[in-house]
Amino acid sequence: MTPKTPLLDTVQRPADMKHLSDRQLTQLANELRSETISAVSVTGGHLGAGLGVVELTVALHAVFDTPRDKIIWDVGHQCYPHKILTERRDRIRTLRMKGGLSGFTKRSESPYDPFGAAHSSTSISAALGFAVARDLGGVVPEGLGDAIAVIGDGSMSAGMAYEAMNNAGHLKKRLVVILNDNEMSIAPPTGAMSAYLSRLYAEEPFQDFKAAAKGAVSLLPEPFREGAKRAKDILKGMAVGGTLFEQLGFSYIGPIDGHDMDQLLPVLRTVKARATGPILIHVLTKKGKGYAPAETARDKGHATAKFNVVTGEQKKAPSNAPSYTRVFAETLLQEAAADDKICAVTAAMPDGTGLNLFAERYPSRCFDVGIAEQHGVTFSAALAAGGMKPFCTMYSTFLQRGYDQVVHDVAIQRLPVRFAIDRAGLVGADGATHAGAFDVAYLANLPGFVVMAAADEAELKHMVATAVAYDAGPIAFRFPRGEGNGVEMPERGEVLEIGKGRIISQGARVALLSFGTRLAEVEKAAEALRARGITPTVADARFAKPLDRDMILQLAEDHEALITIEEGAVGGFGSHVAQLLAEEGVFDTGLKYRSMVLPDIFIDQASPADMYAVAGMNAAEIESKVLNVLGVAQIGEARA
Amino acid sequence: MTPKTPLLDTVQRPADMKHLSDRQLTQLANELRSETISAVSVTGGHLGAGLGVVELTVALHAVFDTPRDKIIWDVGHQCYPHKILTERRDRIRTLRMKGGLSGFTKRSESPYDPFGAAHSSTSISAALGFAVARDLGGVVPEGLGDAIAVIGDGSMSAGMAYEAMNNAGHLKKRLVVILNDNEMSIAPPTGAMSAYLSRLYAEEPFQDFKAAAKGAVSLLPEPFREGAKRAKDILKGMAVGGTLFEQLGFSYIGPIDGHDMDQLLPVLRTVKARATGPILIHVLTKKGKGYAPAETARDKGHATAKFNVVTGEQKKAPSNAPSYTRVFAETLLQEAAADDKICAVTAAMPDGTGLNLFAERYPSRCFDVGIAEQHGVTFSAALAAGGMKPFCTMYSTFLQRGYDQVVHDVAIQRLPVRFAIDRAGLVGADGATHAGAFDVAYLANLPGFVVMAAADEAELKHMVATAVAYDAGPIAFRFPRGEGNGVEMPERGEVLEIGKGRIISQGARVALLSFGTRLAEVEKAAEALRARGITPTVADARFAKPLDRDMILQLAEDHEALITIEEGAVGGFGSHVAQLLAEEGVFDTGLKYRSMVLPDIFIDQASPADMYAVAGMNAAEIESKVLNVLGVAQIGEARA
Repeated sequence: MTPKTPLLDTVQRPADMKHLSDRQLTQLANELRSETISAVSVTGGHLGAGLGVVELTVALHAVFDTPRDKIIWDVGHQCYPHKILTERRDRIRTLRMKGGLSGFTKRSESPYDPFGAAHSSTSISAALGFAVARDLGGVVPEGLGDAIAVIGDGSMSAGMAYEAMNNAGHLKKRLVVILNDNEMSIAPPTGAMSAYLSRLYAEEPFQDFKAAAKGAVSLLPEPFREGAKRAKDILKGMAVGGTLFEQLGFSYIGPIDGHDMDQLLPVLRTVKARATGPILIHVLTKKGKGYAPAETARDKGHATAKFNVVTGEQKKAPSNAPSYTRVFAETLLQEAAADDKICAVTAAMPDGTGLNLFAERYPSRCFDVGIAEQHGVTFSAALAAGGMKPFCTMYSTFLQRGYDQVVHDVAIQRLPVRFAIDRAGLVGADGATHAGAFDVAYLANLPGFVVMAAADEAELKHMVATAVAYDAGPIAFRFPRGEGNGVEMPERGEVLEIGKGRIISQGARVALLSFGTRLAEVEKAAEALRARGITPTVADARFAKPLDRDMILQLAEDHEALITIEEGAVGGFGSHVAQLLAEEGVFDTGLKYRSMVLPDIFIDQASPADMYAVAGMNAAEIESKVLNVLGVAQIGEARA
Repeated sequence: MTPKTPLLDTVQRPADMKHLSDRQLTQLANELRSETISAVSVTGGHLGAGLGVVELTVALHAVFDTPRDKIIWDVGHQCYPHKILTERRDRIRTLRMKGGLSGFTKRSESPYDPFGAAHSSTSISAALGFAVARDLGGVVPEGLGDAIAVIGDGSMSAGMAYEAMNNAGHLKKRLVVILNDNEMSIAPPTGAMSAYLSRLYAEEPFQDFKAAAKGAVSLLPEPFREGAKRAKDILKGMAVGGTLFEQLGFSYIGPIDGHDMDQLLPVLRTVKARATGPILIHVLTKKGKGYAPAETARDKGHATAKFNVVTGEQKKAPSNAPSYTRVFAETLLQEAAADDKICAVTAAMPDGTGLNLFAERYPSRCFDVGIAEQHGVTFSAALAAGGMKPFCTMYSTFLQRGYDQVVHDVAIQRLPVRFAIDRAGLVGADGATHAGAFDVAYLANLPGFVVMAAADEAELKHMVATAVAYDAGPIAFRFPRGEGNGVEMPERGEVLEIGKGRIISQGARVALLSFGTRLAEVEKAAEALRARGITPTVADARFAKPLDRDMILQLAEDHEALITIEEGAVGGFGSHVAQLLAEEGVFDTGLKYRSMVLPDIFIDQASPADMYAVAGMNAAEIESKVLNVLGVAQIGEARA
């Protein structure tokens, strides 16, 4: 069911919009909204964010001169309408699919995406970089004009956004920051900044027209200065709310209605015509705007599966096993019932990490710190220093944001923070930016850290229990996105012995030593190998640190070949095993050692299974690796 | 020359101060200042910061109940007076020495150091963690009372501090943040926040006693409320300056004179008696206060060598070779003269990185972004996207702060940011918190990254030139603290072929493959081995990524044993070599492979040579490793 979009059909790129009247631009926005809804109904994806910025997208492309001017969408998940307007409408129904458009902005995809994103709060830094490069004479094919960052209120809780504003206010370069204030990032807004932004348009001004005296009013469009009611409203906002941003060196305009082209267009035109230094335009929008099922959803249609456009009903595949996230969350609840020192920290991802359940049951012990991984990690460290048992719960890729704090505040002080690392390995539709590829490498070389990976959902339950019990220093356990294997679940998690792996099945000639959920594929490979008369030993390392030295050395001694398998980049589990084998002189004996790790490429979005095929880490490739190592001929055996 | 300190001699710990009068506390502060100067004259170290907080240190310990109350010194380099007052005076002349006191706060050293530091801007997160742990019933031996963060204005430029304030303002826990505003972090202050703080006490208030109406005045000490002139001054400050912090949910008091006990004591007592939520006390201090040579120094005596107390003259050992930092900085200047696209980014370390020279010569191309590594990395990424050649110049340990940005904004987008990584390896007196141990591991597994390490200062010059010339993606080069080897320097740096190492000397049986400045020790070891009749091949890998596959595989083929040496943790260069050897089946042949990396411990401060001895990475240990691998007897040979 493709909507009728006569005006949109004439627009392939922003240049095609330049002759449109303001009224036509409003119509274009309406058609763009319909097309966005239609596309996401087919592909699934981030819906609410894009619907909230339809008018803003049209207005920005109408007023500014892209791709010479650089629009930088923070996070990038609100970019679907932008992609439709910038030469990608023909592929919009391939969003987030293998070989299709990315669900985020991406430099390699289009010159209209000057700076890719997916993690939040990078846009002001990026815009400032472009502004400075422009003023220094940087040369790029599209030219360098204005730099415009569009950043949500949720993203403003990240320190990085503050660092960038602090620097921009100092440098005083012409730069536009659009604060897209929809009172709703992924989770309900949290933090004092959020409360502050709410007051900007709720409070009475303490001194009307203060900003006028400061000259900021000269930035406003002429009709507004003539005394229209709206002008007063805008000035009120400026007087009340401009303060904080002005203190950081920005001129402030707003708040304005981000769904009213009659406000957006004149304000943007005036800014384009007259801005000299950094300007913040405060735009109020509604996430999910214009599509009732999204507007009324609790998460405002943040991320959705494919759906029926008329009813809004989502088409989800039935699941056979609980997700790892759910197993983690429920196990933590179970443990927390018995131990009142357990508390939990999330950085603006209560739903994604399952900690929403914890927050409901134990609100005083659950902390959503905002998009603030740096603070979140050190806050957790101090909770541990204060005698609590904090579970610092983050996606692998986002924990990168708090890496120095992991080293400096947790590891060096050997504080017992429990890191629950979700989305380890390849994650599917979110693609390379969300892959959890590096955590084992960047954690396992920190002195005193314990690093575990769950092989299945029952193992995850044991690892949560192990983390609760372990109080001698930092401990991390990683688990992937998606469903478990459907294994039988124990009533309670069992406390594992630190640094002890397990033999799954004893064989001969070759040992397959798995770390994490690739174990299922290893077992499939082992099955296929047995059919060929090769019975490998299969082992689950459980720990990348400390390694089960005895088990690994025994495996090396008992087998002709040893192959490690992990869903992480080189430098992690396999590298620690290699270091052990080298130090113990095992290589001197001619052990056939191989280490299967994620390949040295960023893998684009696809289904996780397809991504692991690209990575060469499914059962077929494991089997093939064994045959290759053992010198068994595989001639003529084509495999998927 | 030990100063006379009759009152200080009676104080071993804060409990000994509780009966002192306010006048005596002032005397105690004076004696504490003398003792601090005397101690640092013997040890060298951070002088200016400690002198600036002498009165604050005395006042905090007099008013609060440490160690039950938690004083958290941000960065921690201002803690020498604190250490003198907390049972460590007897060891204060061992500061920063092997086996002595740390130059920072350190949990393992004293219960009066509840949370160690060394990197900046962690204190508010830590204090909030203690405050929350207290309210949740956390149990620690010293008990949990008030949490007080003392943070400098420079540290306030870090996003992490903002994240913590944003969260603290939201949680509304009783919490004290003391903003120690000395207008001088390590470098002259930069950023809009700094300018804002200056305005707090320079501007006329726009609305006197505004804060009074908000009830904040009730926090002020009684005598002040009675109308003394100082009360008015404080309220003025509150009215003008409270805004930004109040917007983040803090009550604001200040600014007050941080060298006047008659202001510090009553304000702290009132806060202790009446505070309910988060409070920020804005204290003005003078770095180096009370010691003329420090007060008048350009850096206010930030970090000093041993010195003569009377003259202030520093006792520095004569240097034989230029420092790596200087070689980097001068080479970059030379290159920038020929290429106007070269620009430089530092995160508040212009002096430490040598970029002060660049800033003088090319002020428009040099950017000090503040203590803001996250922003600094992404800003650099956008400069690169804008056609510039940014040199993002950071210490290895501080680059950890921008790791996610390195992955997400630089590596995934394959933008040609040049990372100049100073202080790689072990750094001496700053100890474990400043060691650059992890960068090779966390960079070399990022797809598309080029990672180099300089073997000596001439190599560093080549690598700067190589980074200038390389435009295909991100490139990093690392180099250590301290002086070079005194090698002959080329006129210009030479552009190295990417991914090519070099054979230093051809030998037989064993190949020593060095990555970085351990090469000098490797050559010493080779010399000693030759005296024993073993002539090793010595090679310099230059690149951890891409590896020189041909050279490494040839070395493996031609030798009985291959040993890699690097000043980094496991997961780095050696792990990449092992992965190559494994994939190529080289281990199957029984190659004796070993990888010498930094050991799995955090190494306390000492001289770099001593630290490398602890690490087992000096010539003697390398020689020993070779003999061991080759099975040559070393009986009875004790080595240093």
